[in-house]
Amino acid sequence: MPELKASRARQSKPMTRAVQDYTASISYDKRLAEYDIEGSIAHAEMLGRQRIILATAANKIVAGLKQILKEMESGKFKFRSELEDIHLNIESRLGEIIGNDAGMLHTARSRNDQVALDVRMYCKDAVAEISAGITELHKVFVGQAEANITTYMPGFTHTQHAQPVLLAHHLLAYCQMLERDHQRLQQCLERIDVMPLGSGALAGLPYKLDREYVANRLGFSRVSQNSMDAVSDRDFIVELQAVCAILMMHLSRISEELVLWSSDEFGFVSLDDSYTTGSSIMPQKRNPDVAELARGRTGRVYGNLMAILTTLKGLPLSYNRDLQEDKEALFETVDILTSTLEVMAGMLESTTFNKKRMLEMSGRGYILATDVADHLTAKGMPFRQAHEIAGRLVAYATGKRKELSELTLAEYRQLSKSFESDVLKISIKSSIESRQTVGGTAPNQVMSQIKAAKQFQMRASAK
Amino acid sequence: MPELKASRARQSKPMTRAVQDYTASISYDKRLAEYDIEGSIAHAEMLGRQRIILATAANKIVAGLKQILKEMESGKFKFRSELEDIHLNIESRLGEIIGNDAGMLHTARSRNDQVALDVRMYCKDAVAEISAGITELHKVFVGQAEANITTYMPGFTHTQHAQPVLLAHHLLAYCQMLERDHQRLQQCLERIDVMPLGSGALAGLPYKLDREYVANRLGFSRVSQNSMDAVSDRDFIVELQAVCAILMMHLSRISEELVLWSSDEFGFVSLDDSYTTGSSIMPQKRNPDVAELARGRTGRVYGNLMAILTTLKGLPLSYNRDLQEDKEALFETVDILTSTLEVMAGMLESTTFNKKRMLEMSGRGYILATDVADHLTAKGMPFRQAHEIAGRLVAYATGKRKELSELTLAEYRQLSKSFESDVLKISIKSSIESRQTVGGTAPNQVMSQIKAAKQFQMRASAK
Amino acid sequence: MPELKASRARQSKPMTRAVQDYTASISYDKRLAEYDIEGSIAHAEMLGRQRIILATAANKIVAGLKQILKEMESGKFKFRSELEDIHLNIESRLGEIIGNDAGMLHTARSRNDQVALDVRMYCKDAVAEISAGITELHKVFVGQAEANITTYMPGFTHTQHAQPVLLAHHLLAYCQMLERDHQRLQQCLERIDVMPLGSGALAGLPYKLDREYVANRLGFSRVSQNSMDAVSDRDFIVELQAVCAILMMHLSRISEELVLWSSDEFGFVSLDDSYTTGSSIMPQKRNPDVAELARGRTGRVYGNLMAILTTLKGLPLSYNRDLQEDKEALFETVDILTSTLEVMAGMLESTTFNKKRMLEMSGRGYILATDVADHLTAKGMPFRQAHEIAGRLVAYATGKRKELSELTLAEYRQLSKSFESDVLKISIKSSIESRQTVGGTAPNQVMSQIKAAKQFQMRASAK
Amino acid sequence: MPELKASRARQSKPMTRAVQDYTASISYDKRLAEYDIEGSIAHAEMLGRQRIILATAANKIVAGLKQILKEMESGKFKFRSELEDIHLNIESRLGEIIGNDAGMLHTARSRNDQVALDVRMYCKDAVAEISAGITELHKVFVGQAEANITTYMPGFTHTQHAQPVLLAHHLLAYCQMLERDHQRLQQCLERIDVMPLGSGALAGLPYKLDREYVANRLGFSRVSQNSMDAVSDRDFIVELQAVCAILMMHLSRISEELVLWSSDEFGFVSLDDSYTTGSSIMPQKRNPDVAELARGRTGRVYGNLMAILTTLKGLPLSYNRDLQEDKEALFETVDILTSTLEVMAGMLESTTFNKKRMLEMSGRGYILATDVADHLTAKGMPFRQAHEIAGRLVAYATGKRKELSELTLAEYRQLSKSFESDVLKISIKSSIESRQTVGGTAPNQVMSQIKAAKQFQMRASAK
Repeated sequence: MPELKASRARQSKPMTRAVQDYTASISYDKRLAEYDIEGSIAHAEMLGRQRIILATAANKIVAGLKQILKEMESGKFKFRSELEDIHLNIESRLGEIIGNDAGMLHTARSRNDQVALDVRMYCKDAVAEISAGITELHKVFVGQAEANITTYMPGFTHTQHAQPVLLAHHLLAYCQMLERDHQRLQQCLERIDVMPLGSGALAGLPYKLDREYVANRLGFSRVSQNSMDAVSDRDFIVELQAVCAILMMHLSRISEELVLWSSDEFGFVSLDDSYTTGSSIMPQKRNPDVAELARGRTGRVYGNLMAILTTLKGLPLSYNRDLQEDKEALFETVDILTSTLEVMAGMLESTTFNKKRMLEMSGRGYILATDVADHLTAKGMPFRQAHEIAGRLVAYATGKRKELSELTLAEYRQLSKSFESDVLKISIKSSIESRQTVGGTAPNQVMSQIKAAKQFQMRASAK
Repeated sequence: MPELKASRARQSKPMTRAVQDYTASISYDKRLAEYDIEGSIAHAEMLGRQRIILATAANKIVAGLKQILKEMESGKFKFRSELEDIHLNIESRLGEIIGNDAGMLHTARSRNDQVALDVRMYCKDAVAEISAGITELHKVFVGQAEANITTYMPGFTHTQHAQPVLLAHHLLAYCQMLERDHQRLQQCLERIDVMPLGSGALAGLPYKLDREYVANRLGFSRVSQNSMDAVSDRDFIVELQAVCAILMMHLSRISEELVLWSSDEFGFVSLDDSYTTGSSIMPQKRNPDVAELARGRTGRVYGNLMAILTTLKGLPLSYNRDLQEDKEALFETVDILTSTLEVMAGMLESTTFNKKRMLEMSGRGYILATDVADHLTAKGMPFRQAHEIAGRLVAYATGKRKELSELTLAEYRQLSKSFESDVLKISIKSSIESRQTVGGTAPNQVMSQIKAAKQFQMRASAK
Repeated sequence: MPELKASRARQSKPMTRAVQDYTASISYDKRLAEYDIEGSIAHAEMLGRQRIILATAANKIVAGLKQILKEMESGKFKFRSELEDIHLNIESRLGEIIGNDAGMLHTARSRNDQVALDVRMYCKDAVAEISAGITELHKVFVGQAEANITTYMPGFTHTQHAQPVLLAHHLLAYCQMLERDHQRLQQCLERIDVMPLGSGALAGLPYKLDREYVANRLGFSRVSQNSMDAVSDRDFIVELQAVCAILMMHLSRISEELVLWSSDEFGFVSLDDSYTTGSSIMPQKRNPDVAELARGRTGRVYGNLMAILTTLKGLPLSYNRDLQEDKEALFETVDILTSTLEVMAGMLESTTFNKKRMLEMSGRGYILATDVADHLTAKGMPFRQAHEIAGRLVAYATGKRKELSELTLAEYRQLSKSFESDVLKISIKSSIESRQTVGGTAPNQVMSQIKAAKQFQMRASAK
Repeated sequence: MPELKASRARQSKPMTRAVQDYTASISYDKRLAEYDIEGSIAHAEMLGRQRIILATAANKIVAGLKQILKEMESGKFKFRSELEDIHLNIESRLGEIIGNDAGMLHTARSRNDQVALDVRMYCKDAVAEISAGITELHKVFVGQAEANITTYMPGFTHTQHAQPVLLAHHLLAYCQMLERDHQRLQQCLERIDVMPLGSGALAGLPYKLDREYVANRLGFSRVSQNSMDAVSDRDFIVELQAVCAILMMHLSRISEELVLWSSDEFGFVSLDDSYTTGSSIMPQKRNPDVAELARGRTGRVYGNLMAILTTLKGLPLSYNRDLQEDKEALFETVDILTSTLEVMAGMLESTTFNKKRMLEMSGRGYILATDVADHLTAKGMPFRQAHEIAGRLVAYATGKRKELSELTLAEYRQLSKSFESDVLKISIKSSIESRQTVGGTAPNQVMSQIKAAKQFQMRASAK
């Protein structure tokens, strides 16, 4: 364990076991292993090219690191918790394989810039994976929208019937959210995509490094411009957590709707059996557990955002060990997002929408009263007055225990002489088809949305 | 109070006083008054142009609204809490001024899309104001950096002396943070800058609206594309809160440093008297209250982010009254950010850096040990071994109660024959000047940073 | 403004207007006015009794403070924002009224212990008010439970029909929550109820104070035991915020149920007109806005808890100005809790439960399948096997489009010979009445709960 | 895998692998294994005693469960992820060991009340463990206080020198916090200590259960009183998380102080080598990583509180799968607290306080100015006036570049004739010894605190 000892150059005593456990991160940062090796390879190559270390040493280091990568892929690599973190685990193994030259790898590098590099590489992959998950879920929404372009349902405000809409229109609202999520991720990526290696512990390095080479080699667009910022910056993690929190909030909304809609009272959807679970005690159960878990896990994702914000609050420059706490919550959030996007896509794709039930409920609750008010406005009445008369009409009908469609023209005209016979033609269909404003629920508008949604998918896939 | 009654068309009873108080938002949404009027003017003009209402009515409405705006500017407008919210306050006053035609204003509009418009207009201004505040603070940092291009200080990791750096380098790290904050705000603006009017309650509207006209008139780049999303989307608020939380976190870090640096123990800075406060009991006090309050208010900003995320969790589509809770926390966060940026700029600009004390501390704590290790590496020794020898050297010097600069070459060479006479030339200055990597603390690198920072300022001001 | 000047004894410059605004707290801490005066009266009396100041001076101070209190009660007191906080506003006015002797009031006191006292006094009242609100709401739940002791409804797990229960049983679940909330508040009170005055700025005071006298005079049970802790402790605020967050979470759960239950699909309840609102555009609307706002405000309450926790994180001892940020969020949370408890009580009391609809839904969804399994278990079959057979029975009935009650004994026995004729007697009523375990939904158990709930109310009222 | 199949009685399809992974909890709820078995043993015994199942079956079940416990203790038990959770893992293994009778164990029990029981048992142990950790840390503080009863240090407000205090006094402030933490935990325990088994899925059970027997057998004080509440209540977890968050906040404060105090600038403490770490690049480093990690982990603990609050927001009754998300964050928080308490105790115990440096700084910064003001007050001057004169004195001395102790009586009397010769006797010692109020920093008061602290320890240990 020479490295560990070396990094405690001035300490006369070893850490106690409790302290070792308290400070170790290997149990979770081993997820960064692949990135750590890739980064070390690029660093060693550059050190060789710049003649900071001998080319032969650089080659040996690279070969050794590649061997370690293979050992990891085949599951043979032994992670040792007494070696604290992933960096020391790898460097220690490198020493076993190539001997003293391993000690050259840490030239012109500190764990501070090294770990910043690893986490940034991880985040780049995470963004790609979550973005792909968003696109897949988006496709499922669009697919269901296309299949339900003629499905009527009650549109809700306040969880009360408001105005009838197309189910496709409702589903496409989620596409808007997902497109924003995707855009946020891509913009967050701009700030992740910065190569920090070459910042050293905090002050930069007294070697002729070629930072651009390392950046290109690892697929980064830019190198960091202030070494103190580079080792203490975790903005990109907070931002990724925040973007994920918004995305998860959207997934909690669709989850809530699936839970409601699959209830005995709503009966709007039937979830596929493979997405429901039973009960240990109640044999009849078909519970929407996947949707509930997605909704519940929103808490974890929010909590993880709050965690990293709290950790960073009031930290002086530059690197502080507090920053070690950036990773576990990040990994958890990314795992929750990728898995939730996947199961949500599968669940929605296999969901059956009960069109008959939705149609039945579309006409309930005087849902066309606004159309009646708009009828009066079209005849020249100020909207506020029209709204009031329509309200009285609803009160009248309620008293008579009738739906609006059951009223006669005479009854309408009792309340206002402005009513004309076409008021009797107001229907769910006429209501939906009339809403022709851009973004409205009329079928042609919904078709436009679908077209635009597919263009998004093409753009997203092209990346 | 005809409007209020009208909006309760189907209710046979008034709200109790407690319910009225519980649901009213006028105490805080009056901050949206100007936006509400501007939006209504654009809406009325469009209704007139599209012949949805008579041109004469449109003109009267516009004139009435302009009068109300003047009443507000002169402080004459009476906000009435029984009129629930800002929209009804204005519409009610409009009725008093122009009579029945006021009732035409709400044609083809719902409070759902109206309030979404108002909040988006507010957010656009908030982004502009915060962005300007960032740029001002950025200028102060750059100004102090330029004034301290030759000021040495101990660079810290773990709040321990690590390696000497230029004070300018330290200050410029904050410029990097502020530039990212600025970029995040501008990207967030893309998603704020969407005009929702024309979405109606949730389903779009049965009128021939010209939504693009309204958008242009109000300076929006785009119109919303799905009416259900448009009335229920509050992503832009969450995102703005998140961007503000990151910015506030940065301000908490500089605050923490000012608190530390102005302590009797550090003595790195003297805050200007106008930025310190005294004590009611201790006559000698010069407390850094502004920095402490900034640090403390980070809690409010984080809490406000958590608040809106919680409120949105699991909400079904489309509009729900829960969304009313989006505003107070938003206003508070924006107020905290703009005021903190302002006082922080003034405080930093007027701060005196105690160069002598900083220099004195720059040499303490064996801060040049890394340079000694790098010296050995330059002689061909693997870094790990060099690190270990330098560590033993520190231990040796500690035992002798000497600083490294007090050791003789002979003493160096006792530990390694690789030491050569130029090891005696290692100094704070040589250490700083050697760190020539891009983003390093060497003076020419720091000068490059300052140049780039000024380019940022020009770009930011051009917007 | 002599006081303000005095507290800036060592500053050669005034604060800028921006700094004055940034540091001032008078806009919100004026809510502490009454407590501040009460505390000052007790302090002045004690100073007089202990002969630390002259009895005549003490008397003048007390008389002056009482006059200020009257000025406040009559709305005549002028709060001046340039006087920073409530303490200086009052002391300044005292100077105007009684002259130089006012300067004796701050003997043996610091704003640090003074504000700690004021906030603790506020919290004591807040606990009392919230506790009373809990008890009132608890009574409404019990009242509705008593009125619905024979109302059947489907019990839910996963928002799916699980087993039939009494509505009273469901309502009484909330009483359990409220009783825990009440208990938490009372225990939190033990830690609030500590008198900090006499701690000075941080180190205690060099005067012969009678702290017990002040504590008794102000109704505190104990005096603080460590002066540094006393001025920096805000635990009691965090704890009160946390207790309120749990309470608000409970209120969000009942809110969610009221929203669901008043939907067109559920139709379980009709909210009273005075607790619903209409729409500016849709005339038919009866929206459950009060419940939605309560649910939405949960975000604010959670956020306020997070705010104070964040503010306190990592603060060194003792008093820091960050602590000023403890109040606004506290006031807001207490206001939200007291108002929500009040409107919730009124809303629930006036809610009509649609017993017929609830009964109708109680039999849906094979809700009695568990009873069928329990029937088999009673005949000696292991529960796991019984559960499986009941599951197959449900599948059989689903295929036949029958409810379980429509099956014949022969059909039952096709699946298991263990079924006996009493299986046909399984009903909603039998199911409910059979659940006789302590805490179960059988009517006698529910009656016991009501009895215990009333005992809680008596205990709570006795306090 | 008969159990899993059984619990999906009505599903015609298996879950996909992704869904299985998404819903499985075995990776973390295996920590509940021991509690689950203990609970099952008590349940089975009770079923046997009540003749709900045959005594022979009960005996076999109990024997089988004990065997499983042994398999776990010896590491032989194979956890199978396809068996979803800990309950099914154990029940499945029981079936392998004792055959069909295993199916009787789940009689009169649901996973809903079973998991509630397990988590409550876990929480009881967690409270005990954390309480013990608090007491240990408290002892270390008291030990250091006793060792430093004559150590002077500058007391801080606003991180500025305020008044001199005893180091013991400062340390004992933390004892106050820890005592409150301990009390909160004990009171939280009252609400954890409720036995939920016998609540069934939600409605209670149709069996003659002896719930009191199970409660006694498992060491619970009470049984739950409403079955719907019992399966959906997670208050005790929120409360435990909140109590832990406050405790962690306290630990973050002491951590912050250790970081500051061990800085080169403060130099108040030297951490023991076994509690510091080095750097991979800087050989001289002795970093306070343990304190930094404790401070950083505060974020995780806060985040976990926010997570559970978010998860519970707006959940309708009774059990919902969202509740599965209660455990991971709870386990993490408890682990962080117990480990942090342990390392903090070790670190503080081994910390060397640099008395000389502390004493040196105790006299800096006109720290005795308040004593000068109090001197004047003792001569009859109103405190406000005295404060002003002392302020002018500090200004005078600053101008002369003198400390107050270097001024002559004549200089004092230039500012006020009220100064008398004993003003020259003001010293750090006299300042500290004069603060005799209860809770003040005078040595006898500090001794009283130590005595009271030891009484707390005795009470805490007696539990």
